[in-house]
Amino acid sequence: MIVVLKQNPNRHQLESLIAWLQEKGIIIHTSIGEAHTILGLVGDTSQLDIDLIAALDIVEDVKRVQEPYKNANRKFHPEDTVVQVGNTQIGGGNLTLMAGPCSVESEEQVVAIAKAVKASGATMLRGGAFKPRTSPYSFQGLGATGLEYLKVARQETGLPIVTELMDLSQLPLFKDVDVIQIGARNMQNFDLLKAVGHQDKPVMIKRGMSATYEEWLMSAEYVMAGGNENVILCERGIRTFESYTRNTLDLACIPVLRKLTHLPIIIDPSHATGKSWLVDPLAMGAVATGADGLLIEVHNDPAHALCDGPQSLKPEVFDGLAKKLLKLHDFMKTVEE
Amino acid sequence: MIVVLKQNPNRHQLESLIAWLQEKGIIIHTSIGEAHTILGLVGDTSQLDIDLIAALDIVEDVKRVQEPYKNANRKFHPEDTVVQVGNTQIGGGNLTLMAGPCSVESEEQVVAIAKAVKASGATMLRGGAFKPRTSPYSFQGLGATGLEYLKVARQETGLPIVTELMDLSQLPLFKDVDVIQIGARNMQNFDLLKAVGHQDKPVMIKRGMSATYEEWLMSAEYVMAGGNENVILCERGIRTFESYTRNTLDLACIPVLRKLTHLPIIIDPSHATGKSWLVDPLAMGAVATGADGLLIEVHNDPAHALCDGPQSLKPEVFDGLAKKLLKLHDFMKTVEE
Amino acid sequence: MIVVLKQNPNRHQLESLIAWLQEKGIIIHTSIGEAHTILGLVGDTSQLDIDLIAALDIVEDVKRVQEPYKNANRKFHPEDTVVQVGNTQIGGGNLTLMAGPCSVESEEQVVAIAKAVKASGATMLRGGAFKPRTSPYSFQGLGATGLEYLKVARQETGLPIVTELMDLSQLPLFKDVDVIQIGARNMQNFDLLKAVGHQDKPVMIKRGMSATYEEWLMSAEYVMAGGNENVILCERGIRTFESYTRNTLDLACIPVLRKLTHLPIIIDPSHATGKSWLVDPLAMGAVATGADGLLIEVHNDPAHALCDGPQSLKPEVFDGLAKKLLKLHDFMKTVEE
Amino acid sequence: MIVVLKQNPNRHQLESLIAWLQEKGIIIHTSIGEAHTILGLVGDTSQLDIDLIAALDIVEDVKRVQEPYKNANRKFHPEDTVVQVGNTQIGGGNLTLMAGPCSVESEEQVVAIAKAVKASGATMLRGGAFKPRTSPYSFQGLGATGLEYLKVARQETGLPIVTELMDLSQLPLFKDVDVIQIGARNMQNFDLLKAVGHQDKPVMIKRGMSATYEEWLMSAEYVMAGGNENVILCERGIRTFESYTRNTLDLACIPVLRKLTHLPIIIDPSHATGKSWLVDPLAMGAVATGADGLLIEVHNDPAHALCDGPQSLKPEVFDGLAKKLLKLHDFMKTVEE
Repeated sequence: MIVVLKQNPNRHQLESLIAWLQEKGIIIHTSIGEAHTILGLVGDTSQLDIDLIAALDIVEDVKRVQEPYKNANRKFHPEDTVVQVGNTQIGGGNLTLMAGPCSVESEEQVVAIAKAVKASGATMLRGGAFKPRTSPYSFQGLGATGLEYLKVARQETGLPIVTELMDLSQLPLFKDVDVIQIGARNMQNFDLLKAVGHQDKPVMIKRGMSATYEEWLMSAEYVMAGGNENVILCERGIRTFESYTRNTLDLACIPVLRKLTHLPIIIDPSHATGKSWLVDPLAMGAVATGADGLLIEVHNDPAHALCDGPQSLKPEVFDGLAKKLLKLHDFMKTVEE
Repeated sequence: MIVVLKQNPNRHQLESLIAWLQEKGIIIHTSIGEAHTILGLVGDTSQLDIDLIAALDIVEDVKRVQEPYKNANRKFHPEDTVVQVGNTQIGGGNLTLMAGPCSVESEEQVVAIAKAVKASGATMLRGGAFKPRTSPYSFQGLGATGLEYLKVARQETGLPIVTELMDLSQLPLFKDVDVIQIGARNMQNFDLLKAVGHQDKPVMIKRGMSATYEEWLMSAEYVMAGGNENVILCERGIRTFESYTRNTLDLACIPVLRKLTHLPIIIDPSHATGKSWLVDPLAMGAVATGADGLLIEVHNDPAHALCDGPQSLKPEVFDGLAKKLLKLHDFMKTVEE
Repeated sequence: MIVVLKQNPNRHQLESLIAWLQEKGIIIHTSIGEAHTILGLVGDTSQLDIDLIAALDIVEDVKRVQEPYKNANRKFHPEDTVVQVGNTQIGGGNLTLMAGPCSVESEEQVVAIAKAVKASGATMLRGGAFKPRTSPYSFQGLGATGLEYLKVARQETGLPIVTELMDLSQLPLFKDVDVIQIGARNMQNFDLLKAVGHQDKPVMIKRGMSATYEEWLMSAEYVMAGGNENVILCERGIRTFESYTRNTLDLACIPVLRKLTHLPIIIDPSHATGKSWLVDPLAMGAVATGADGLLIEVHNDPAHALCDGPQSLKPEVFDGLAKKLLKLHDFMKTVEE
Repeated sequence: MIVVLKQNPNRHQLESLIAWLQEKGIIIHTSIGEAHTILGLVGDTSQLDIDLIAALDIVEDVKRVQEPYKNANRKFHPEDTVVQVGNTQIGGGNLTLMAGPCSVESEEQVVAIAKAVKASGATMLRGGAFKPRTSPYSFQGLGATGLEYLKVARQETGLPIVTELMDLSQLPLFKDVDVIQIGARNMQNFDLLKAVGHQDKPVMIKRGMSATYEEWLMSAEYVMAGGNENVILCERGIRTFESYTRNTLDLACIPVLRKLTHLPIIIDPSHATGKSWLVDPLAMGAVATGADGLLIEVHNDPAHALCDGPQSLKPEVFDGLAKKLLKLHDFMKTVEE
């Protein structure tokens, strides 16, 4: 951490700051220039509150050199994390296809889709039981009943299930779920993150609509600080001024996160674009960029989906796409030695 | 609502759509052009799920003409909502000054600040007991103890208190709070919104970091749909590419919301800018633009604040600012007839 | 185009509007609802000034149904445009690799790089002679001399050259250039667009830092309206709040533009990310998403590049990447029937 | 400037870097930590190309401590710049009201508006002769004829004129204009900036749609580096995801720029919002926040304006607003001692 002091800092305040930092085991290198004095802080600076230091009268600016996250940081954990879910592994060179309906609507629907996507190569079933909807007048999901239908579909197909938890009060209902999804709108619901950090199921954290990589990784850090190391990151587009697509899918997150963290990275082209015809090319792009997996909406009757219909593929379209994705994943192994 | 159909829509599907809309009491005006057929839907379209219609194979685009919110909509509620809190009123031509520390740190601290800001003209005390912090390693607030200190400060000064609720499980602790604040990161925590909609305390909803006006009003609608009409909106800056200020304060929200809704509008220049020296000019700007009040951080020792120090004013600085703000508010009444 | 009228519009003004529209050959369908009257305008609405109509006292809102661009619109030109440049074709199923230094620094440098990238499979040479630099104190490019060095490199390798034109006063210098590049900062320099529209060389338009697809296509329309049909679009990232990468590369633009326009689409991962280690994965992602080509910075000594060094690949790294890109492009043909 | 080195930097490269910096008169303070070695560079670092240093293999990150602009920097020019235009002064505690039509349409129109706005208190006349329009099919302005009409209006009223220059080839036509405006789309048209820096008329630079404060000041620096010190900055809103308003007006720029630079700051609420009913409250907010002036569109018949009509005020509305603005400006002097 680098602390840039104002010109002619109050000597007494400077000594207090130095003493306080030394107390925390920080070593300080001072560099005195004409215009500025700069303190280089060396040691475990992730414990220092950058805002607190920036608040001091004598400080002009504070800049981090080290990342504020530790458990999620590849520097301290060089090996890729591979998350085991039932018989499938997320990360470690696998391509995980998570597919299923946006909303669980009925047992028949979710079982039929689960069978179809499994036949096409999906290794996990996704489906929403609790749905975050912008309008209180929109369908809010089947709730606990929806979770039951998902479990029936799992029993029929063997596919592990991933579904969104919206509030920590629902946690008891999720004890039989395979992967807990934290939605984009809850990425900084810190009480929820703490709660899922204190249980042992894998957690998939979607990137917030305007979250930076660092904030996203800090949300992972919340979960991991609670003891739960099985965290998956899921990019679903960020908000920009372009409104033709619902959000702007940021595929650069794949290589960037690969460098910053050891956690697996899943891409959701369905929510990112909001248009089903964009799912195919962007899913292919995500695999070529190095994604560990994809989260894709599949619906047997998009026209009657109770939510988010325009971004859902029909099972036969997903079938063609899944085959291409798996072939591309194999191809990529041949060119990336 | 306007539905633009694709060229040569399937006749059977079109008839189904029309029948379904008519069932919901919607009247349909059809306009057939060379390139497009357009359906004009008339009636209560706020109950229609726009995504569901857009999902249909025959539909190219759907555009809303009416707003999707009703309770929060000025068209259906032309009079300004005035929220009564203790002896003070928010909205209706008053200027409400909510001031206090970012975090409650001790009884002495919050009582001292409460007395100071009351003497300067503040009519409400703000202070965080539960703190949303980006890092799990940062101070998370005093929690329930912090709420107790706020109540002591209220008892000593008579100032009603506003403080942030982060999770619905904490709701029982808030029964003696005057106004419940929903933070920016929880603006779309829909379970939390429903929960505060089913209790009777006023709720102040901060705008999400990248929320549109419509999404913000839909969050108000969630609370109001539960029966709680006492909703206050608080702008705290939106995220842009400009990083000199923490966020970009959007003062245009004041006249825009004044037109769209009847709810009072509070501006928070402290969080929006993240720098204490920007609070004064932007608070003045907010009053001249027509804000119903301000939320301002005041700290008796910014250098030792446990969080968000750089944006806090010292009580003596707040005193000067409060006097200017009240004078400006009086002046504005003389020029706006 | 749909015109939503205010409630109880002034009858005289409405009649004037209708007469004016009819004069322009527009057919009007009127749909009268309880809250709103809606006019559906049918005909060539691209000639109507949407702002002018929105300005009318009786109008509440105007929404376009048809795109405002014609020459660039795939609806009116269903076949892909293939731009012929020397012996190479851009678009039409080819993968064009444009490679070279950010800035032309010397004849030796640009010739050496040109030879290297040609050997690796590049089909065009890029290089900046006139450089848009944020600071007046930064190197501004070699100018006319740089253009001469590029021509020497072309003579030595046969690679056609693409280079940026910054001002229309420089146009005479560009008469021996193969493709004129319009930089992101000049995407809405309308005089420059008109000028290159009135000459016959192909023009590659980079997307502005915060331009929408529609604005970008309108810039292409400016060039095409002047009679020059040979326009290439180049995505180089848009500005978002994420600052780890210089910009956010929007690969969704590829399938979206493929639908909206017939013009070829090139991706520039070097400028988009600003980091050389991100070029490889994003270039692969771009090809899998369907790009017609890539614009990649290659430098023989990145450490001494006079500008934009951090994003340049060394020739040997480019060599490995180019081979992978061409293999991936072949692979994609086998899976996309 | 702070240079953070990678772990175990190549010794030879480090020595080269240090030698190169010392050659440029930079003094270097080295701080060696466990994880990172940090170089603190002291001296005139504005001449250093930050990208060049960041490109070096041994460098992990470079951070500026000093601003990259000098002529525009308040640190090197503590006094406010006051720009003299005819009999009026911009900056230095004055409130400059620049008013007039978006587009010059006819001599009668612009003379009538000029007379009206002068009577209301405007001190400068604005009006577009060359118009940057997104569509090649929209009205592009009257050009040279429009400039003539503006001069007639100046003769009739004595109001100095400010109007936009779109291309440096038009510069000879502007020799009789009082203030040259550089539009938002040309903020980084560096050849244009250089050209207006080499002539002696005041230049008003509008902020680019997604420009940071620093980039905006670097554009001012381009003009000032050419010898022209009379630069005025004009905020006209930045692009965000909120689309209800055309752009998001960033009033925080006023106090921020006041600190960073000595140049006067004008606010344009008309273009920023795109809606005439938002001009009044935001203009008032701008004055209370400390703006040096306002740029306001006034049209005698908004319904027939050839461009940008929805944001223009009628003269009688401007009259009421101008009176309020001047009263508020006087009031502000009484409260800001």
